[in-house]
Amino acid sequence: MNEILHRVGVIAPQKDVYAALTTIDGLAGWWTEDTTGDPDGVLEFRFATAGGDGFDMKVLETSPELVRWEVVGGPEEWIGTEVSFELSQVDEFTIVLFKQAGWREPVEFMYHCSTKWATFLMSLKQYVETGKGEPAPNDVLVSNWH
Amino acid sequence: MNEILHRVGVIAPQKDVYAALTTIDGLAGWWTEDTTGDPDGVLEFRFATAGGDGFDMKVLETSPELVRWEVVGGPEEWIGTEVSFELSQVDEFTIVLFKQAGWREPVEFMYHCSTKWATFLMSLKQYVETGKGEPAPNDVLVSNWH
Repeated sequence: MNEILHRVGVIAPQKDVYAALTTIDGLAGWWTEDTTGDPDGVLEFRFATAGGDGFDMKVLETSPELVRWEVVGGPEEWIGTEVSFELSQVDEFTIVLFKQAGWREPVEFMYHCSTKWATFLMSLKQYVETGKGEPAPNDVLVSNWH
Repeated sequence: MNEILHRVGVIAPQKDVYAALTTIDGLAGWWTEDTTGDPDGVLEFRFATAGGDGFDMKVLETSPELVRWEVVGGPEEWIGTEVSFELSQVDEFTIVLFKQAGWREPVEFMYHCSTKWATFLMSLKQYVETGKGEPAPNDVLVSNWH
């Protein structure tokens, strides 16, 4: 199994980062504006740059220290992977340990998703710190795959 | 073994990206201004934010399609890992497949390095496309670990 890992530190209280990961408005502020669904059920993230495709995430756990989702809809490579955000406070930073676990093969798409997750986590940091992130459709472009 | 993977697309000829990976001036333009050493031997990258610490990379291979380094000096977790950049041309993009292979454990420092590599690869893209990257000491800060 292969994992995408990232770590960012957000200069904000942990509860603010938690809200950005567990509410529709929060998620729409840094990942994709087209976020709908049930924060306690299945969340639906859509991306215009991907022709309207996106990801459906079943919320497995939401505690102040850990948010976990299972991918139940989206590209074949993503189905069954688990996305998690582990939160802790260190000085003025809320540390976010991000993981997408369960990639079956380290395909080129995984390389791409790793870089995109990094830019979206920097968008999360910016959103919580300043009120304005860079969610899709105005996300940072990293390559020909957007 | 664990790997950090990334993919960026640089809107520039492949030879320009290759130069940014294989010359002192090029490397200093996107990773760290304090780059010295021998592009055919051992490269020395230093970071003021890390108290002058950094990485020594033994150049294993430099072909237009693949640049490979072995980490021979630096933090214990990095020693013996291999960093590679695979280059190819797709339309107007030079695609860079980045890998740091051989991490013994997915320690928290690996999460951090994954995110930092992403921001430095975006700096590489920006440097080659515009002539100005964001190398250390003016690199993008991602957390309390810089």
